[in-house]
Amino acid sequence: MSHRYTIALDVMSGDHGASVVMPAALGALQETRDIRLVLVGDKAVIGAHMRHWPEPVKPRAEVLHASQTVGMEELPAVALRNKKDSSMRRAIDLVKQGGAQACVSAGNTGALMATARYVLKTLAGIDRPAIATALPSLFGHTHMLDLGANVDVEAAHLYQFAVMGSVLVTAIDRNETPRVGLLNIGSEAIKGNDRVREAAHLLERSSLNYIGFVEGNDVYCSDVDVVVCDGFVGNVALKTSEGVARMISENIRSEFKRSWLTRLRGLAALPVLNRFRSRIDPRHYNGASLLGLQGIVIKSHGGADALAFQNAIRIARKEAEANVPQRIDKQLGRLLRQEVEV
Amino acid sequence: MSHRYTIALDVMSGDHGASVVMPAALGALQETRDIRLVLVGDKAVIGAHMRHWPEPVKPRAEVLHASQTVGMEELPAVALRNKKDSSMRRAIDLVKQGGAQACVSAGNTGALMATARYVLKTLAGIDRPAIATALPSLFGHTHMLDLGANVDVEAAHLYQFAVMGSVLVTAIDRNETPRVGLLNIGSEAIKGNDRVREAAHLLERSSLNYIGFVEGNDVYCSDVDVVVCDGFVGNVALKTSEGVARMISENIRSEFKRSWLTRLRGLAALPVLNRFRSRIDPRHYNGASLLGLQGIVIKSHGGADALAFQNAIRIARKEAEANVPQRIDKQLGRLLRQEVEV
Repeated sequence: MSHRYTIALDVMSGDHGASVVMPAALGALQETRDIRLVLVGDKAVIGAHMRHWPEPVKPRAEVLHASQTVGMEELPAVALRNKKDSSMRRAIDLVKQGGAQACVSAGNTGALMATARYVLKTLAGIDRPAIATALPSLFGHTHMLDLGANVDVEAAHLYQFAVMGSVLVTAIDRNETPRVGLLNIGSEAIKGNDRVREAAHLLERSSLNYIGFVEGNDVYCSDVDVVVCDGFVGNVALKTSEGVARMISENIRSEFKRSWLTRLRGLAALPVLNRFRSRIDPRHYNGASLLGLQGIVIKSHGGADALAFQNAIRIARKEAEANVPQRIDKQLGRLLRQEVEV
Repeated sequence: MSHRYTIALDVMSGDHGASVVMPAALGALQETRDIRLVLVGDKAVIGAHMRHWPEPVKPRAEVLHASQTVGMEELPAVALRNKKDSSMRRAIDLVKQGGAQACVSAGNTGALMATARYVLKTLAGIDRPAIATALPSLFGHTHMLDLGANVDVEAAHLYQFAVMGSVLVTAIDRNETPRVGLLNIGSEAIKGNDRVREAAHLLERSSLNYIGFVEGNDVYCSDVDVVVCDGFVGNVALKTSEGVARMISENIRSEFKRSWLTRLRGLAALPVLNRFRSRIDPRHYNGASLLGLQGIVIKSHGGADALAFQNAIRIARKEAEANVPQRIDKQLGRLLRQEVEV
């Protein structure tokens, strides 16, 4: 099979740069025969890694030199202005020019979003791109957006996020009528704020499979497919989830370490606990989509390891295969027309 | 020891009413000798429960008849207008009249907040009461507010929440300089919204032990004592946490139920897992404080069982002992004066 999808990797960004991205690249090439990778970054560094690669995969990897790296704390405006030869910028440029169908970066979210938006532009009808990711749930998984790109949004933006999330799930999960919920709070007194209520009205009138308000627990414990919220709330929910999961796992560990008896019990339970752990392993969920752009950009967690980064590459391939931006564009056009007709 | 604290219990509200509140009341009376309880609700129902109580505790329980019950879905305004003889209203009235130092209700949050605010009034300098609760963390526990009373807040409100939360922790944890953090998102691009930034400026200039921005994971994994946020974000964070914890625990259970071998492994691990579960058992954290009122009102989870409701009574007693409203009043006066001086 020839390589059908070309994915550009920002090799230098993230907390670990090439030491994580290069092994992930090798893993991805070995796992999936139909991809080609463009490794963007310092060619000496990349070359040093590739020397140890098995020969058969090498033809599917191309190196694109970039002399700069965007720092994890660098301000987006500064990165945009001063880092035109950064691995991040070059990888996104490549998507713009058609040299790759998608790119993956573990670089800082703000700079990545700003650069992607500047280079690729948003789709017609999208005011603001959003960040979406899949999260594990009792029913498989749930996609949530926005996760931090937009802190102050209006109802119309939440509506656009719903469209984008719905299209994403249709495209990559082959679910034609994803259940879309609007994140709200359940206190009887005050069902959310004006923005959320207004967005609900928009969604009720749309042709999306809108199921109404959902609460925080529904992200993990109900069969909703797409949870829509503003970026502040989404980011807090995501980080809070990480915190709870970490606390629970450290508590379990420390309970099993109390004494030789509990250690023994831990040993007995280990295979099962490991299996469970792998089921909710955040590395299997690494890779957030920057949606609403005229191109596919996948953001890996900055601290991701090779296994996690490889998952982000997997998502990039999936979105390339499903043509996510074109689908959103089409669906959005349809929904906007529909709205006018209503 | 004579009974130093009198606590009014709304016996009828919540998903389970008397069948949960009455056993919790008995448990509390047996656990703590220095409390007296006023059991507010249908006297026939209450009497039926008390018939089975051991004689020695009975002198410390008084019954106050109330003919109505506020429904869990009842609108606050409706409850306020039409349910003047409800167990909820009577319990709060009792606090107002000095017949009890605190009250506990598992009733609907909106009605409880509206009634408490109407009857007890807010403290001078507090625009809006907030809901606060303790959450388990790797460092013991963290208090978080607001959890849903206020969805649209201004910076000044967040500042008031910080003062209230700080005083609460000082009063009940005997921590003189609680570490106060402002919940924000960490995306480098856009550090929060204007409100949060403005609140940060107010907090930096205050005499509170303000440690700066914290993120969702810090609630569970850092040594912050008080996490301040608006009620929408707080409620989502709380519910999301519940969802993650439930998903994890159900996943662990189902992994152990896969086969006879994993069941055996589960049996071995059970005592340790139970111990861990009790450490993060939400029932041990049941009981949220309605802060900023001229009186103590503790909200129990609507679906709480007796063990959980008893914990809410424990919190009511603690806050009565610590005189939380008076302390907030004093501290707030001091901080407001300080602000003027600045």
